[in-house]
Formats: sequence, C-alpha cells, structure tokens
Amino acid sequence: MGSPAVREPQQDRSRATRQRLLEAAVECLAERGFAGSTVTVVAERAGVSRGAAQHHFPTREELFLAAVRYVSEVRMQEIGRQAATLGAGSRRTEALMELLADLYTGQLFRAALHLWVAAAAEPQMREAIVSLEAELGREAHRAVIRMLGVPDTPGVRETVQATLDLLRGLGLGNLLTDDSARRAGIVRQWARMLDSTLPKS
Amino acid sequence: MGSPAVREPQQDRSRATRQRLLEAAVECLAERGFAGSTVTVVAERAGVSRGAAQHHFPTREELFLAAVRYVSEVRMQEIGRQAATLGAGSRRTEALMELLADLYTGQLFRAALHLWVAAAAEPQMREAIVSLEAELGREAHRAVIRMLGVPDTPGVRETVQATLDLLRGLGLGNLLTDDSARRAGIVRQWARMLDSTLPKS
Repeated sequence: MGSPAVREPQQDRSRATRQRLLEAAVECLAERGFAGSTVTVVAERAGVSRGAAQHHFPTREELFLAAVRYVSEVRMQEIGRQAATLGAGSRRTEALMELLADLYTGQLFRAALHLWVAAAAEPQMREAIVSLEAELGREAHRAVIRMLGVPDTPGVRETVQATLDLLRGLGLGNLLTDDSARRAGIVRQWARMLDSTLPKS
Repeated sequence: MGSPAVREPQQDRSRATRQRLLEAAVECLAERGFAGSTVTVVAERAGVSRGAAQHHFPTREELFLAAVRYVSEVRMQEIGRQAATLGAGSRRTEALMELLADLYTGQLFRAALHLWVAAAAEPQMREAIVSLEAELGREAHRAVIRMLGVPDTPGVRETVQATLDLLRGLGLGNLLTDDSARRAGIVRQWARMLDSTLPKS
C-alpha cells in the first residue's frame, strides 16, 4: 500500500492542476485577448503558482495550444452526449445546429479566434497553430458527420464543411455583440437547407 | 482663373493623400495586425508625414475605422461592376459566390478581422466598431440581394445572411493557410444549395 498509494493522489493533484490551468487559459484568452493573457495572469486565475504553471507548460505557446486542444475535446464530448439524447424527429437537425452554434459562439471559439489572429501576426507561433487548426477542423468534421448520421461522401463532405464555415461566421458575428436573435433565424433556415440537401439517414 | 484654380489641385492632393492613407492603413492592419499598425507605420507606407496623417485622422481609431469603411465601399463597387458583366446562365450563382469568396479571403477581410478582434479586448474602441460592423453588414446584405436578383423576403433574408456568415467563415479559414482548394468545393456546393433554395429570379 506504500508508494503507489502516495503516488496516486500526487498524480491526481498534478492532473487537476493541469486541467485548472488549461480551463483558465481559455477563459483568459476569451476575455482579454492574446496580448492580455500572460502565463502569470493564467496561473493567478487558476490559483496556481507561476512556477507550477511553468513546470506544466514551459512556454506560453505550449500552454495556449494545449488549452484550446483540451477544452475543445471536452466540449466536443459534451456535444456528442447531448446529441445522443435528441430524438430522430424533424426538429433533430435544427436542435443539432443549435448545439453547434452554442459551441461556436462560446468561450472556446472566442479563445481560439484570439489565438489564430495572434498567430497571423506572429510567425513563430504560426506553424503549431496551423497544425492545431487542421486537427480540430478534422475532428469537428467527423463529429458533425456522426451526429447528422450521414456518409462522408462527395457532396455531403462539402455541405458539412460549409456548415462548419457557417458556424465560424456565426462565431465571428457574436464577437462584439449579442447576435442571438439574428442567429436563431439563420440556424433554422440552415437546418431546413441541410434537411433538403443531405441524404436521409 | 486665380483662387479656385489653385484651390482645386490642393483639394485633389488632399483627397489623394487621404486615400493613400486609407489604403495603407488596410494593408498594414492585414499584414501586421492591430498592435503592429501605428499611425507612424501607416504614414510611412503611404509616403505621408506623420503630421499630415494626423491632420486627416486625429486618432488611430478614426484612421482605421475610416480605412475599413472606405476600402469596403471601393471593393463592393468593384464587385457590383464585375457581377453586372456575368451572364444569366446556370453558372451565375457560383461565379457570384467566387467573387464574394475572393473579397472575404482578401486583404480587407483580414484587416477588418484584426480590428474586430482588437475591439473585443479594447472597450474604448468597441462602440464605434460595432456600428461600423452593423453598417457594413447591412450594405453587404443589400449588395448580395441585388446581385442574386432575389426579393428580400423572409426565408430569402436568412439564406442571404447564412451566405454572409459562410463567407466570414471562409475568410477565417484562409487566415493562416492558403485554403483555396477546400474553398472551391464549398463554394460550388453552396451555389447549388442557393439555386435550389432561392426563388428563381
């Protein structure tokens, strides 16, 4: 019972610290932008010392990349679970689009947007962000294909990609104002267009 | 022949200086982001003294707001002229979408994106940028309605709004990489969906 029992809580604590840092990093980015989000600010929000933060994430870039990747995985899993509870009725596509629109107008999208735009002006961050963007794009594509219950065939593929671009546009439209009234009508119309375009599952 | 003839060229010169500053401001924002775009940098690129730049635009915010508004008007007029030369055949919607996608993946969108994202983290710029965003959004909506030759009725309105959000998403997708291959398929599919959704003009 000795050593493993001691190691276990330490590992748990370390994992919990890491997760607090990642969640705090996304919150900071979303609220303050990249320039206002230093490791010190994130560590403070997470209730962790600057030294502990740097132990987990030696550079600021590593912290923010890991943060967007981690929170993205968590949110996509949540949406997958919510989608599984939706019925198969005629409102299913619209309900799915609402779930996705909530994701793309939330804190995670806002954080990612600040990171992408910072990378556009900072060449040393660019390569890592481009890989992360491609990885998250592929995961989002697979998740939407799965939730809509359609095959990933030509035509469908482009419609799903268009859906993801529309969602990014809705996210951008919600950056400076509460765009929810305009968005509701677009989501409804988009669901109609998807239902008449996609093969029946 | 005296005073008016002298004043005329001065007014022309002043207008030309102003336009050079506005074009340079959009180029700077697109390339360097908001933090890297000071009035000094813009004046230098435009070949204008810092004093002359401040005579035209007393604050940095005024310069960038006027720049995005001016370049946006110029580009929308260009697109309107190009759209007028397109035939009425079955490829018209796709050709229109390509014109619009070129606009939303170009320098102007990139500049506007940097300005919007900066405003999200800088409360004192926010109000003016929100007004500008709303104004440009209304103009883009009217322009797309006109180019597609459709009535601005319920259903059509939301489809056109979705088109503008999709275009914003495509612009964002082109921020860090050349996204043109993926985009071509989406634009084609979107044009098909528009043709089967919108009333025939």
